[in-house]
Amino acid sequence: MKNNFLSKDDLIQARERIKNQVKKTPVLTSSSINEITGANIFFKCENFQKVGAFKFRGASNAVLSLKENELRNGIATHSSGNHAAAISLAAKLKNIPAYIVMPHTAPEIKKKAVANYGAKIIFSEPTLKSREEKLNEVIAETNANFIHPFDNYDVIAGQSTASQEIFEEFNDIDFIITPVGGGGLLSGTSLSTKYFSPKTKVIGAEPKGADDAFRSFYDKKIYPSVNPKTICDGLLTQLSEKTFNIIINNVDEILTAEEETIIESMKLIWERMKIIIEPSSAVALAIVKENQEKFLNKNVAIILTGGNVDLTNLPFK
Amino acid sequence: MKNNFLSKDDLIQARERIKNQVKKTPVLTSSSINEITGANIFFKCENFQKVGAFKFRGASNAVLSLKENELRNGIATHSSGNHAAAISLAAKLKNIPAYIVMPHTAPEIKKKAVANYGAKIIFSEPTLKSREEKLNEVIAETNANFIHPFDNYDVIAGQSTASQEIFEEFNDIDFIITPVGGGGLLSGTSLSTKYFSPKTKVIGAEPKGADDAFRSFYDKKIYPSVNPKTICDGLLTQLSEKTFNIIINNVDEILTAEEETIIESMKLIWERMKIIIEPSSAVALAIVKENQEKFLNKNVAIILTGGNVDLTNLPFK
Repeated sequence: MKNNFLSKDDLIQARERIKNQVKKTPVLTSSSINEITGANIFFKCENFQKVGAFKFRGASNAVLSLKENELRNGIATHSSGNHAAAISLAAKLKNIPAYIVMPHTAPEIKKKAVANYGAKIIFSEPTLKSREEKLNEVIAETNANFIHPFDNYDVIAGQSTASQEIFEEFNDIDFIITPVGGGGLLSGTSLSTKYFSPKTKVIGAEPKGADDAFRSFYDKKIYPSVNPKTICDGLLTQLSEKTFNIIINNVDEILTAEEETIIESMKLIWERMKIIIEPSSAVALAIVKENQEKFLNKNVAIILTGGNVDLTNLPFK
Repeated sequence: MKNNFLSKDDLIQARERIKNQVKKTPVLTSSSINEITGANIFFKCENFQKVGAFKFRGASNAVLSLKENELRNGIATHSSGNHAAAISLAAKLKNIPAYIVMPHTAPEIKKKAVANYGAKIIFSEPTLKSREEKLNEVIAETNANFIHPFDNYDVIAGQSTASQEIFEEFNDIDFIITPVGGGGLLSGTSLSTKYFSPKTKVIGAEPKGADDAFRSFYDKKIYPSVNPKTICDGLLTQLSEKTFNIIINNVDEILTAEEETIIESMKLIWERMKIIIEPSSAVALAIVKENQEKFLNKNVAIILTGGNVDLTNLPFK
């Protein structure tokens, strides 16, 4: 099976394409978390990225890769999460319309964020079938260009730019860990590691209660995400053809973490680092906490994927 | 009245003395907060400082300025807040004992933080009189060296290093704003501004419900802080002789902010910047929000003083 649908040059070009539009986020360290885990952790703060999540990298690269005539009728997607906000802002910056299909059950705060960027929201039922039907209607009507949240090489190349920035700053990373939902970030990270830091091992981190990527990786076939049970609202989706193929060829391991460790890790990052991350971002640290021996005295890069969380409804007491 | 009890060289030496012990904290910006306020704000993130507050700079400089024979019997202070934790860690790093007088009513979480650094806690009643009596007893018994939270030139010089770092990175700051409680940070900031960025205006920010520094500044005499009513638990103290004298000679203005604006500003920073700050840190942004015309299109540096807050008891809904 081919493993480089995206070349090193594609990744470099993606970085060049979006660099004036995305934030170069800081890498933070915490001596107290290092003491607790025994590892030497470098946290890449994509919670500080525009729209509060790494998703803006992929959305920006996808939009900026389209030709003017492909953008003329706007862009469309279905998402109730960070990709929706990312597409909305990327469209706004290009001054083109964005059509976002969202389940009518999505939290008010997410509807507001998308509306604030000037996107048009089309409500669907909260099923994949209804979302896809609505999306097809919207595309038929508007001729907008569909940008999938992760099954899209331009999106994957955009997500790779977070780890490109890490490897530019640090040349001695033993492990890089990212959470895995649809696999856009993990696949992009695995390619940039292969091209820019080949000695680094790539690990995907998944909640035990939503372990479809873990099983897909080891059984070498895509399992659907059925009834996932986790607080990590960003990790409920399953892998796609494109992300699966890149991941099985370039990722070293997928590990799963207990829900309790994820919540503890989230609280630890809030308390010790004074930064706000969403639950999905805490899975990578949970993996380190549950596998301390593996990471002892190692240089571990972790991508903190986002910081969009309801501040009035925190999972810890 | 003399206005330079601390020379430019004293400030440079303080920076040199503590630079391997304190974190050089990042300066973050937020395009959405800039849009909301119309100003161009540079947030110096002392919430990321060790012990979660700028206080570690002053404590470090004070401890590292003492001679070995002055340190032999340890150091002592009274504080229930960030200075207590800062002194405890600075002592631990020097491998000397720390004696902290704390009101027995202090929050458990603060007692724990200090105990975790290995300091000895001596409980007092929650009055200034009882605290001072207990402290005198401790000093008589131990011969420990007393380090006042702000009425101490080494502490003030240490606090000046936060703004020294700002001015090294940015040479076109129109205003620098810090909250004012006892005045250690404001006085240190005003001196470093005078020496390193004399065109920058220095503003102290105070809650309207605890406006003793505001009144002291304009009436040119120190008022006590009587029954302060504010959520800003770091800003309840009054100015001291040393901080007052520096402030009236080197600060351009003290402005006060409404409690409601402070809470709104705190929430805004959490939501848009994805960082955790304590209420006292939000007063500076509240000043900008309440005086938008003054800061329109200006480069404004704000020191976010700390991030120690009870995550299970947030002031916003």
